[in-house]
Amino acid sequence: MVHVTSGVSALVCALYLGKRVGYPREPMPPHSVVLSFIGACLLWVGWFGFNAGSALAASPLATSAFVATHFGAAAAALGWGSAEWIRNGKPSTLGTISGAVAGLVAITPAAGFVNPMSALAIGLIAGVVCYLMVAQVKSRFGYDDSLDAFGVHGVGGTIGAILTGVFASRAINPIFKDARGNAMGLGILDGNAGQLLNQFVGVVIGWVLAAVGTLVILKVVDLAIGLRVTEGHEIQGLDLSQHGEEGYNFEVSA
Amino acid sequence: MVHVTSGVSALVCALYLGKRVGYPREPMPPHSVVLSFIGACLLWVGWFGFNAGSALAASPLATSAFVATHFGAAAAALGWGSAEWIRNGKPSTLGTISGAVAGLVAITPAAGFVNPMSALAIGLIAGVVCYLMVAQVKSRFGYDDSLDAFGVHGVGGTIGAILTGVFASRAINPIFKDARGNAMGLGILDGNAGQLLNQFVGVVIGWVLAAVGTLVILKVVDLAIGLRVTEGHEIQGLDLSQHGEEGYNFEVSA
Amino acid sequence: MVHVTSGVSALVCALYLGKRVGYPREPMPPHSVVLSFIGACLLWVGWFGFNAGSALAASPLATSAFVATHFGAAAAALGWGSAEWIRNGKPSTLGTISGAVAGLVAITPAAGFVNPMSALAIGLIAGVVCYLMVAQVKSRFGYDDSLDAFGVHGVGGTIGAILTGVFASRAINPIFKDARGNAMGLGILDGNAGQLLNQFVGVVIGWVLAAVGTLVILKVVDLAIGLRVTEGHEIQGLDLSQHGEEGYNFEVSA
Repeated sequence: MVHVTSGVSALVCALYLGKRVGYPREPMPPHSVVLSFIGACLLWVGWFGFNAGSALAASPLATSAFVATHFGAAAAALGWGSAEWIRNGKPSTLGTISGAVAGLVAITPAAGFVNPMSALAIGLIAGVVCYLMVAQVKSRFGYDDSLDAFGVHGVGGTIGAILTGVFASRAINPIFKDARGNAMGLGILDGNAGQLLNQFVGVVIGWVLAAVGTLVILKVVDLAIGLRVTEGHEIQGLDLSQHGEEGYNFEVSA
Repeated sequence: MVHVTSGVSALVCALYLGKRVGYPREPMPPHSVVLSFIGACLLWVGWFGFNAGSALAASPLATSAFVATHFGAAAAALGWGSAEWIRNGKPSTLGTISGAVAGLVAITPAAGFVNPMSALAIGLIAGVVCYLMVAQVKSRFGYDDSLDAFGVHGVGGTIGAILTGVFASRAINPIFKDARGNAMGLGILDGNAGQLLNQFVGVVIGWVLAAVGTLVILKVVDLAIGLRVTEGHEIQGLDLSQHGEEGYNFEVSA
Repeated sequence: MVHVTSGVSALVCALYLGKRVGYPREPMPPHSVVLSFIGACLLWVGWFGFNAGSALAASPLATSAFVATHFGAAAAALGWGSAEWIRNGKPSTLGTISGAVAGLVAITPAAGFVNPMSALAIGLIAGVVCYLMVAQVKSRFGYDDSLDAFGVHGVGGTIGAILTGVFASRAINPIFKDARGNAMGLGILDGNAGQLLNQFVGVVIGWVLAAVGTLVILKVVDLAIGLRVTEGHEIQGLDLSQHGEEGYNFEVSA
């Protein structure tokens, strides 16, 4: 849900703020794929603490969440990279790590409730769908979501929340008991047809709250202190104009 | 105390060695703010192991030390960045991460003894005072402490050691018991007025030991093998002259 | 054993694939020693999870494996750097971190079975021997093992497996008991002369399996889809020709 709301909020921000100067006329690739890769690796490792740590104990449930997290991220990385390969002829590093992040996002609501095979399925679906969102839907609508916060976090989080209603299993987490003390089914495949609707309603509420809340906050901040820098500052770059510093102060040569 | 002594030792080294060739005439910014930022992030995460791990158990006390560490670092980052903003008109990335490190240093003696609000106070004070040391005191005295080891570690450690005598609370760590088995007060605000003097005496002993010890070591090493490279080697750079290698072997273009 | 087989497999790959275009005529230094260093640091920290985590509990044995890992890596870093210093007049960063990795590899089979002094000995031997392999043996035979996977992982793993048969001690891990329940000796220095032969036989089996298995796999892949890109693609670089992306999209200046 954190990712659903942050992704939807990012979309509202991108629509409200408008595009960067020059977008999409000028190509604006991430300036360092190397650093993106390092960041994704740190994120992947840190995410184990996030998902497995939510068990609040060094328990079998934490182990299950840990494994699901790893499998979901790996399957999504392969899914995004493969989709890119089929569509463009070349899998890219940036696509593969974007897929990994989409998988981490999508598996988060499910981790601790699904088995490893389900985690692979959730990851694979998230990797392919998020890729299509970023590669096709975004360019069709033309909004400037430079970090793909909506395409990866909003869409990945929505997919994960919905699919948790499909794959969640009492065999992994017997969290609800009936009057006789027997574990109750969790997702559709576990015999609980109603959970998918519950998840869907939860996601819709998240979308609406995030969209309306973000719009209100943006409006207030816009009226109070403004939201965009001047065009001159934007072209100069925010590092220099807002912080007075450059990222790199060195010269390299072959 | 590790930071008090290392910071004071660094100051003695900076004074004994003298300035880098060209300092302070030529600007010598850190060559990559990006790498500084990555380093500060790794340091912040690693510090949790240092402070929370000192409880030697996955216990409530470890959790308390963990939270205090996080709050102290965050408050100091905001403190340094805000002070810079007020004084120069722009908060910088380098200042904010220097503040985070100053906060980590300052909260270290207190972590496991103070509540989260006290951790915020210690961090905020350390961030602002260390900024003033680095931005004002250093330039007034003109010593060349290129990594601000004294300004951040020496001063931050001293602030943290003193403020632990103010904020340490038996509610967090009932480490000392009286004859009846009741927990005794720890810091001034916990009703133990004498602790501030104890902390102060400890810090003074640390300063003196570090300064004298470092001076003796520097003198011995200077006489035995010398302390500075030749001016030619310094201008060429230590990477090349001492290690025969360059940091970067590539060419990049826009 | 993971490192023995991966290192031997890498050697078979390097021999089967042949050299990079231009090797060894053109110098091909690692493009960024800075990133190599960051990677080695992350590897060192992650390795604690690998070796200490193999105890599957937060136990004294895990602590012992943790300490042995750290000491082995540190001694090997010093060993490689010192050997380089003696031979070339300058210790390099790249050599020192290669030594650390060689030490991590060599201590892995022994961690959890040896005391800290033995870990220092294993690391030191691995650092010096791996350096000689990479600096002398590789250039004599002329194969192009660009990452030194054989010299560091294959040789380091072999040294570690053999030396475990020398230094393993029941005082650290009383894993085998005799009929009376007394712990039995593990390595030669622990009174179990036969273990060195066992380790040696294990390593030989690993070498043969890895070499034959890798050769079969390479042959099959070669016949099915081929193993090398075209010379044009290799000169253009695999980033561009295979993935359609560049590592860096920025310009830096002094």
